[in-house]
Amino acid sequence: MSKNSKKMVEAITDMEKDFAQWYTDIVKKAELIDYATVKGCMIIRPYGYAIWENIQKDLDRRFKETGHENVYMPMFIPESLLKKEKDHVEGFAPEVAWITHFGEDKLSERLCVRPTSETLFCEHYSKIVQSYNDLPKLYNQWCSVVRCEKTTRPFLRTTEFLWQEGHTVHATAEEAEEETIRMLNLYAKHCEEVLAIPVIKGQKTDKEKFAGAKATYTIESLMHDGKALQTGTSHNFGDNFAKAFNIQYTDKNGKLQYVSETSWGMTTRLIGAVIMVHGDNNGLVLPPKIAPIQLVIVPIAQHKAGVLEEADELNKRLKSIVRTKLDKTDKMPGWKFAEYEMKGVPLRLEIGPKDIENNQCILVRRDTLEKVTVSLDKTEEIIIDLLDKIQRDMLQRARKNRDEHTYAVKTMKEFEEKIEKTPGFIKAMWCGEKECEDKIKDETAATSRCIPFEQETISNTCVCCGKKAKYMLYWGKAY
Amino acid sequence: MSKNSKKMVEAITDMEKDFAQWYTDIVKKAELIDYATVKGCMIIRPYGYAIWENIQKDLDRRFKETGHENVYMPMFIPESLLKKEKDHVEGFAPEVAWITHFGEDKLSERLCVRPTSETLFCEHYSKIVQSYNDLPKLYNQWCSVVRCEKTTRPFLRTTEFLWQEGHTVHATAEEAEEETIRMLNLYAKHCEEVLAIPVIKGQKTDKEKFAGAKATYTIESLMHDGKALQTGTSHNFGDNFAKAFNIQYTDKNGKLQYVSETSWGMTTRLIGAVIMVHGDNNGLVLPPKIAPIQLVIVPIAQHKAGVLEEADELNKRLKSIVRTKLDKTDKMPGWKFAEYEMKGVPLRLEIGPKDIENNQCILVRRDTLEKVTVSLDKTEEIIIDLLDKIQRDMLQRARKNRDEHTYAVKTMKEFEEKIEKTPGFIKAMWCGEKECEDKIKDETAATSRCIPFEQETISNTCVCCGKKAKYMLYWGKAY
Repeated sequence: MSKNSKKMVEAITDMEKDFAQWYTDIVKKAELIDYATVKGCMIIRPYGYAIWENIQKDLDRRFKETGHENVYMPMFIPESLLKKEKDHVEGFAPEVAWITHFGEDKLSERLCVRPTSETLFCEHYSKIVQSYNDLPKLYNQWCSVVRCEKTTRPFLRTTEFLWQEGHTVHATAEEAEEETIRMLNLYAKHCEEVLAIPVIKGQKTDKEKFAGAKATYTIESLMHDGKALQTGTSHNFGDNFAKAFNIQYTDKNGKLQYVSETSWGMTTRLIGAVIMVHGDNNGLVLPPKIAPIQLVIVPIAQHKAGVLEEADELNKRLKSIVRTKLDKTDKMPGWKFAEYEMKGVPLRLEIGPKDIENNQCILVRRDTLEKVTVSLDKTEEIIIDLLDKIQRDMLQRARKNRDEHTYAVKTMKEFEEKIEKTPGFIKAMWCGEKECEDKIKDETAATSRCIPFEQETISNTCVCCGKKAKYMLYWGKAY
Repeated sequence: MSKNSKKMVEAITDMEKDFAQWYTDIVKKAELIDYATVKGCMIIRPYGYAIWENIQKDLDRRFKETGHENVYMPMFIPESLLKKEKDHVEGFAPEVAWITHFGEDKLSERLCVRPTSETLFCEHYSKIVQSYNDLPKLYNQWCSVVRCEKTTRPFLRTTEFLWQEGHTVHATAEEAEEETIRMLNLYAKHCEEVLAIPVIKGQKTDKEKFAGAKATYTIESLMHDGKALQTGTSHNFGDNFAKAFNIQYTDKNGKLQYVSETSWGMTTRLIGAVIMVHGDNNGLVLPPKIAPIQLVIVPIAQHKAGVLEEADELNKRLKSIVRTKLDKTDKMPGWKFAEYEMKGVPLRLEIGPKDIENNQCILVRRDTLEKVTVSLDKTEEIIIDLLDKIQRDMLQRARKNRDEHTYAVKTMKEFEEKIEKTPGFIKAMWCGEKECEDKIKDETAATSRCIPFEQETISNTCVCCGKKAKYMLYWGKAY
């Protein structure tokens, strides 16, 4: 924190002392959310929502560039429709919200608020897909879904949350598998290029896969407290749902075939990931690409002649190249520094009478608090360079931190020691049996995160039972 | 319809014979929607949703330019919260969807799915507004809402629909009134400039105003069948909700004051308006500004050497200036003509071997079916001019049609004759009493649409009771 601002703001909890409280302090003090009366729901405030809009814009562009189209399905699912695929209803029924009445009228069949929309998409596809000419269908939907949660935390786990859900149908199993992996890669690129969050790509074990899926792929990232976060998932359903919903098409030879299906989703939990990967004890640190304000202009001694005029002039010039805000309120500069540091604005520009005299201004990076004095003639190019550099540096720092907290272990003793003393990702060999997965979870509270695409051989035997190893797995305590 | 396509497509119902069936045919055949299993809900298909995205983009830009910020409130409202403002709960309680259980657990208090979010915004404002420095708050939300409807029609009246709802709080009654009118004007501009739909701006009578509002302003437009459609509304709540929810701020003199509040909304019903104002017996006619495809390229004799290459080349050139689609499927050109006419694509570009020889192509307007032959060297500028002209002409034609179906009447006999024989807007004088409003509705099935801002004096007496007239009103049978 800038020296002169430290004393002026109510401090947030130290992240090293109480990470959960630090997180809660940030979401409130950076004005990302407010709590709602309805238990487990949150209000996303303008600054939080603007971050989500920037995430949406980037994802939506990527979806459209890969041929996907947006649609909107109803938010209600009749009970009988939810029940059509057995594993699916078992996975979701315990946590759905049930509608019983419209006004005073009791419904003949209960409706639930969508916890996810596989069943609605399947029913629609069963009507509109007839021939191989109709395939593939590559649909996506932006909406909110409801899954009742007992313990909630803003962005990470709430009863209602915003997300996108892609649902596609294909002529062949191969095409569905390609799509599933394509979307996982798209998610990984978004995380690394836009959110500056490095991810591990891999497959979920059978125990951890999605209700009704043949295979679930995931991207996993590591938070600052050493806990893992599932950042996005992509599911290959094979023909499970196609058979339950009778989605068939006539192939080129006139033969009836079941379609193969995928779904994939990312949620507002991404904002939670950004907070926990990049934030520090001064507050939020936002990657420039999603920052609602990329540069804040703070006039110094703004009552002096010419300062506000010059600040206005600069703001006009700069706002055509970056998202700027000029703060002309009569708060002390130190207050303003602290406020925009809390909000994670990537760059601060200070300009006062002396700077104007010297045809210069001062730029301060949020991520490193480094200061540079720059000529007013070169401000534009330096700002663009700096924002680029901040974006790159943030990814590099996050990757370094992740790698430093990733441990290859050969024994359960090492496993337990690491997860207890220096939490992070644990890489360990696994025999492939659910018994070992359960046992490790019982003993360490760590869950299997994924079977990474990039396999390594740490040893030849399962870390738990000592039998022949099949895969290297990532483990971690998770949100 | 183009001569050579007429025979190839299954005709839609003639709009002059059965307007309701014509409408239903279009929404299905232009692939805007599909019906969902849940009664009264609809699936918005990719082509329909892309129209909504273009409408959203324009409105959202206008909202942001006028200082509004987007937020997201929960979709659930506890019963006790809904009941806080008396008129409001009476207006909405009969049509809300009630949640009683989360999974197996019975809730201690029922929740409804938001029919609108005044109560949620008010509760939030009561927490975040303390001083005059916090005002105004200009928030907007994009979401779906639920109001159970017995009789539904796609886009016009459905149990769930998509919309935006603006909710603002202000220090003074004057500022709230200014905001209410500002947003009504913004809506009117969007309708005229983007949807090419002329509107009448005015105030709702007390009988027709929103549940809990002090004043409701409306824009009303006229459909091709002579029925009126309420296209957008803007409400001034005064301090009704502020008092019910205790939203107070400290003014500059340190005195506690209630805020003044507004709300305003537009919905997917706008798509219904576009269909019913511009559509014809060949299908949809879309204003270029919201058309997902502004220009479709149809190659003629595409099996011949060079045709597809030239079409590809043209498509590459044109897609940087307009939203294009090149249809290379092996359907007959006549089929393609009919399909894109049904979908309302504003311009069709035909290119075949002879055209290539003569360095030309053919452009066909959807709205007039006029054809022009243009040099390939000038295609870009002519397309831009034509799209502009189509946009303007569509508004002019709609205005002409509206004016030709707007009748000033002095007696109930004239009123009844007009509304029966040549439906449209009826302008008539009114004494201001609810009794006359009720009586006219009973006798003619027409409802008061608005007290227009632009008043005229048709006579000095109320068309119904003959007493002294207070206002000139617009009347109509309405959707």
